[in-house]
Amino acid sequence: MSTMEKELIKTIADISGFMPGSAFSLRRNGEGVERHSTQNIKIVAKSDKPGIDIHVAPHTIGEEVHIPVILTDSGIHDLVYNDFYIGEGADVVIIAGCGIHNDGCDTSQHDGVHVFHIGKNAKIRYVEKHYGEGNGSGERILNPKTIIHMEEGSFAQMDMSQIKGVDSTKRDTLANVGANAKLVINEKLMTHGKQEAYSDVKVNLNGEDSVVQIVSRSVGKDTSIQVFHPIAVGNTRSRAHIQCDSILMDQAKISSIPEIAANHVDAQIVHEAAIGKINSDQLMKLQTFGLDVEEAEKVIVEGFLK
Amino acid sequence: MSTMEKELIKTIADISGFMPGSAFSLRRNGEGVERHSTQNIKIVAKSDKPGIDIHVAPHTIGEEVHIPVILTDSGIHDLVYNDFYIGEGADVVIIAGCGIHNDGCDTSQHDGVHVFHIGKNAKIRYVEKHYGEGNGSGERILNPKTIIHMEEGSFAQMDMSQIKGVDSTKRDTLANVGANAKLVINEKLMTHGKQEAYSDVKVNLNGEDSVVQIVSRSVGKDTSIQVFHPIAVGNTRSRAHIQCDSILMDQAKISSIPEIAANHVDAQIVHEAAIGKINSDQLMKLQTFGLDVEEAEKVIVEGFLK
Repeated sequence: MSTMEKELIKTIADISGFMPGSAFSLRRNGEGVERHSTQNIKIVAKSDKPGIDIHVAPHTIGEEVHIPVILTDSGIHDLVYNDFYIGEGADVVIIAGCGIHNDGCDTSQHDGVHVFHIGKNAKIRYVEKHYGEGNGSGERILNPKTIIHMEEGSFAQMDMSQIKGVDSTKRDTLANVGANAKLVINEKLMTHGKQEAYSDVKVNLNGEDSVVQIVSRSVGKDTSIQVFHPIAVGNTRSRAHIQCDSILMDQAKISSIPEIAANHVDAQIVHEAAIGKINSDQLMKLQTFGLDVEEAEKVIVEGFLK
Repeated sequence: MSTMEKELIKTIADISGFMPGSAFSLRRNGEGVERHSTQNIKIVAKSDKPGIDIHVAPHTIGEEVHIPVILTDSGIHDLVYNDFYIGEGADVVIIAGCGIHNDGCDTSQHDGVHVFHIGKNAKIRYVEKHYGEGNGSGERILNPKTIIHMEEGSFAQMDMSQIKGVDSTKRDTLANVGANAKLVINEKLMTHGKQEAYSDVKVNLNGEDSVVQIVSRSVGKDTSIQVFHPIAVGNTRSRAHIQCDSILMDQAKISSIPEIAANHVDAQIVHEAAIGKINSDQLMKLQTFGLDVEEAEKVIVEGFLK
């Protein structure tokens, strides 16, 4: 791998190589490059379409799966289907992420369709970082589609962030939460330049005592546009909490349209959202410590998205 | 007027007669019945379509306008256009309201289109109560459309409530708020039986330092359905606060879809919404005072909608 590719993988997946001995799959420019399974976690290439199946054996505890994707050629349109089968009682961390380096003038696009089947009492933490870079005029587009089926007593924490450099994204997330299962979605998003970001999340609370918590934090800079549309539907005794906070800068535009629907008397659903510019008291305080306005804004934005 | 009609007017407009000497218009079963103007407030029947124009002279202070509507015949479909011209610096109270008594088997429907032109520095409080009763199988339908244009420095408080007995309502409210103007919308809604209520509110904050505050409280009983969709759009330096709270009872279903859009860096927009059943601590406390469950629920619901 080139230094640029290594750096890209480090940014999105916090690893610096192929991770021999661990469950690992690297996809580059639309092709699988390297793939390892372990005794408990099998990664198998799909035969009917691009993508992989990840099988985590029941009661696998403490293992990690890394599945980074990088696009370094200009003009690639990559569409991939990944299915995750998490066995009963397993407890694993899945680190995905997609980095695009586009130095050319053609659009580079990665659309990932991820389907999670989370077994009874299984736990996952899923970390997905999206990042774009490069000096070309070609656009960097990422459209992730995530579908989550959660069985009884399972837990999933989805940490999804778009750090920088993605020109356009349409994020589409759908979850069906079973009895006593809990889903936590932490979404972090920063847009700059003329970027556009749309995020639709729909969570169906179908099982008794199912819970969802969505925390979305975003910063819009320059003339970028963001639209959030999280939906929580309580179909039985269940709880939902949605919170969307956004910092608006420059000429950016942000809309937030959380939708809550209670179809059962024991559904308890709350949402809160706030859009506003950087707190001027915080800005002033940091300036009294000797920071200029730009440095102070940077500290606040980084703290907000941390 | 019959006793039933008098009672209906009392329920929706808190008055017991024709109010001679004050600005007054009573509409019954699709026809204007009685109309008075005062020196400062002229009520004029429209010549091109059903409805009235209400002209409030500039700097009219402390006067009230009553414009109740009642439907007592079954099978009436009344469509009325009322325009309010509030002169600069005026400060008045407008008491509208529609009551339907339907003992028949045909649908009784009143659709009111109200357009408010609120002059510079003028203030209004607008009170609108909707109520249905009667033993017939005919539906009672109320579809109010309200359009509010607010000039610089004006203030409007819209207290809109649907107390009881309205089988179906589609409420549609649109406001354009000018510089230094403030709009307050207080919406109260109770549905029962198989009733359906939809409320769309869109507020455009177009003037510098314009403000909107929307507080919506609702109770859904039996198998009724409620859908709220308030939208606040900050197009300049402006503030918006939207709050929707709902109590869910029985097999009712409630959705809340507040939409906030900040198109300007100095737009500050916040919304909060919560849907849940009656607080069980409150219920228990009232029961220790000797109330049975039903009585305790009634006290809590009435307090919530007060």
